[in-house]
Amino acid sequence: MISIVLIGTGSVARHLFDTFMLYSEIKVVQVMGRNKEELAYFGSYSKFTTNFDKPKPADVCILAVSDNAIPIISRSMTNYSGLVVHTSGSVPMDVLSDHDPKGVFYPLQTFSKNRKIDFKKVPICLEANRKEDFELLQHLAHLISDHVHEITSEQRKSLHLAAVFVNNFTNHLYQIGSSICGSNNVPFEILKPLIRETAAKIEELSPHDAQTGPARRGDIYTVKQHLGELKNDDFIQIYELMSRSIEKEYQGK
Amino acid sequence: MISIVLIGTGSVARHLFDTFMLYSEIKVVQVMGRNKEELAYFGSYSKFTTNFDKPKPADVCILAVSDNAIPIISRSMTNYSGLVVHTSGSVPMDVLSDHDPKGVFYPLQTFSKNRKIDFKKVPICLEANRKEDFELLQHLAHLISDHVHEITSEQRKSLHLAAVFVNNFTNHLYQIGSSICGSNNVPFEILKPLIRETAAKIEELSPHDAQTGPARRGDIYTVKQHLGELKNDDFIQIYELMSRSIEKEYQGK
Repeated sequence: MISIVLIGTGSVARHLFDTFMLYSEIKVVQVMGRNKEELAYFGSYSKFTTNFDKPKPADVCILAVSDNAIPIISRSMTNYSGLVVHTSGSVPMDVLSDHDPKGVFYPLQTFSKNRKIDFKKVPICLEANRKEDFELLQHLAHLISDHVHEITSEQRKSLHLAAVFVNNFTNHLYQIGSSICGSNNVPFEILKPLIRETAAKIEELSPHDAQTGPARRGDIYTVKQHLGELKNDDFIQIYELMSRSIEKEYQGK
Repeated sequence: MISIVLIGTGSVARHLFDTFMLYSEIKVVQVMGRNKEELAYFGSYSKFTTNFDKPKPADVCILAVSDNAIPIISRSMTNYSGLVVHTSGSVPMDVLSDHDPKGVFYPLQTFSKNRKIDFKKVPICLEANRKEDFELLQHLAHLISDHVHEITSEQRKSLHLAAVFVNNFTNHLYQIGSSICGSNNVPFEILKPLIRETAAKIEELSPHDAQTGPARRGDIYTVKQHLGELKNDDFIQIYELMSRSIEKEYQGK
């Protein structure tokens, strides 16, 4: 049995809570937060507080809070002697320097409150400064996910950066596609199978081999035509920059 | 029974050929091309030629060739009286002006030679200048796909432009993610569940609602930190431009 205190009430906290509740081997003892409305989600587990210095005793205390709140809450918990971990992709483990038993439990996924996630498929990136804490985190991670990785703070930083490109920026490209469809009375729905296939394709092919399109082919005529069709300045700049970057990748190949 | 002549030997021709062969209601009578090696794929159906003026009689002659080859081949077929269609997203139907019965049969998908496609899930965008030809194309399209749309040349042009953003540019973001992982000794594999979820998410949420990440949150600290980590100039510019464009989308919201 692994006992857990969760601090935070956002998307990551909610998804972790919902997942932990599925397993009899995991016991959530408390969810602490300073937002009463958000805390309601956690029912009888919730503990409203603005003072995080006395979480209930547990095997792991998970700070599932925003990046800038991590050092603040960590500092306010100096009297807490148990294992404290955070869930952030970009914050180094050492930010938890007020704690000797410390670690990172980073689920590499995009979480939205209104969307269910199958945690078994979420990669969990672990770090800890003591072997026994790492093993505990590993045990916990293996209970809820099939993809558990030991990742240093340095590696995690670059994973998070890469994730911004493949997730945040990709979603913004969907938004641009949706906006172009909207301006031309075409349902965005028609593009969804293409979006799915684009993602599915790289299970088999490397992104380098999967690349298609006018910039890949060096089809300057179509590139010019597309630039002429675009009206939004940002979209034009994004089209130009992405096309140039693709052209470079395949130059002379 | 719908009889078909295919002109062209590239990815689209191959995928259409493989799909047509699955249905007893569709009969491929000939595949014409000027590349002997590529033609080998089509076995006994293949007809090597550099002269496209005499395709065998068929209900539909499909030009599955590159955009700039469409007008050239169309012009060389002026004596052909049957229905001629092309498969391009960006070429207007009127480029086939040498033919009275003409149309467009545009499968909106990314095709690579080494990857199988379930055509039932590929949206097919149709256009024709005569009602009876449209109905024939519609019949053919419905046999092989569950997603058939009537789309004008103008709408098709914007769909193709939007497809460049959601497919070509998205794949390039995957390539950048893979490159960042490679430079930092992290397996790109770890990002694949995130890539899948990013695409799956917009089945339920609009791209606007699905957006997450530092630029969405206005988290200038993380944006600056990421820009400092990037070494490739193009990646830096793409990061800046995409973040600015996301920030604008959510400004004051």
